[in-house]
Amino acid sequence: MLHLASATGPDWAPRAIAHLDEVLLDHAHLEKKAAGAAVTLLFRYPEHAALQKPLSELAREELSHFEGVLRHLERRGVPFARQKPGRYPGRLHRAIRSDPKHQLLDSLLVGSVIEARSCERFGLLADALPAVDSALAAYYRSLLAAEARHHREYLRLAECFHSSDEVQTRLEEVAQHEALVLAENLPEARLHG
Amino acid sequence: MLHLASATGPDWAPRAIAHLDEVLLDHAHLEKKAAGAAVTLLFRYPEHAALQKPLSELAREELSHFEGVLRHLERRGVPFARQKPGRYPGRLHRAIRSDPKHQLLDSLLVGSVIEARSCERFGLLADALPAVDSALAAYYRSLLAAEARHHREYLRLAECFHSSDEVQTRLEEVAQHEALVLAENLPEARLHG
Repeated sequence: MLHLASATGPDWAPRAIAHLDEVLLDHAHLEKKAAGAAVTLLFRYPEHAALQKPLSELAREELSHFEGVLRHLERRGVPFARQKPGRYPGRLHRAIRSDPKHQLLDSLLVGSVIEARSCERFGLLADALPAVDSALAAYYRSLLAAEARHHREYLRLAECFHSSDEVQTRLEEVAQHEALVLAENLPEARLHG
Repeated sequence: MLHLASATGPDWAPRAIAHLDEVLLDHAHLEKKAAGAAVTLLFRYPEHAALQKPLSELAREELSHFEGVLRHLERRGVPFARQKPGRYPGRLHRAIRSDPKHQLLDSLLVGSVIEARSCERFGLLADALPAVDSALAAYYRSLLAAEARHHREYLRLAECFHSSDEVQTRLEEVAQHEALVLAENLPEARLHG
């Protein structure tokens, strides 16, 4: 149960595979950003003891995925390098309200929705890739459970600070926002493009 | 071989143990900062492929230590919380020159020296703690090899970009600066106080 407000269409995976190395490089940057976002929350909320261990474990797992993607890039002969970021993260982060009462909730829910979309799209890649790169297909398959777990973990953390109802209501709003961002037909070939 | 320019005096460990919970809390923040510093370098230098995997692994290990210290805080009944940072990190970071030619070298060497000092002081705590908290003494003993390895790893990374001679010369300067910072008799009871 990923709580997404839209399903990725059938044209996404073929397009991603047509630009596979670009998408894989984007994925490496994305895992690093996911780790960075968790570490940033650790620094921003030292007074919230409940966040510390879970977000530290989550950041470690994201870094481990980052290293996994680096290995696949190396195997495919693609150098790790700077890449123009896709528009998705920036647009998605506009859902984070800056007032102290909502900033943490929104940050956790944006994290949750990103993990959900990654989970969905990793599944599509795992289904579509075997004929192209079977090792990479298996790698994407191996990531699904962790992404779904991270999605739930961010929701669980939000419920440490807000009622389930409040979390659910805001989650639906953030998921709607995310679906609108994706519906903009972002031009870059990206995991979240 | 830790390349430190001074040895911690015999009065440090008794003072640290007299303020053990404060020092332990500082240690938790320090491991988090060490992870944050490695992640920051990952973001600052995406064009340096040689840094990515080693710094990601290092950040994961620092986060794992952070979680270890959180467990000891919990065991001792000390809540994780904000803490006034000691002056050591800020003063030490003044050794980092901001021009692009030197910033990475200096950042890696400051990282290297912090790991070396941590290694030295963890050893002192491991020797002094058994009568006070034997589990904590064993934990500090268990960290020594990793800290020494991180010290060497930062030097190895510096040598990916600069000659051994240049690294060695600058390391001595940074180590001298670190010894002067410690000689200021920092007032806080901190791991690097």
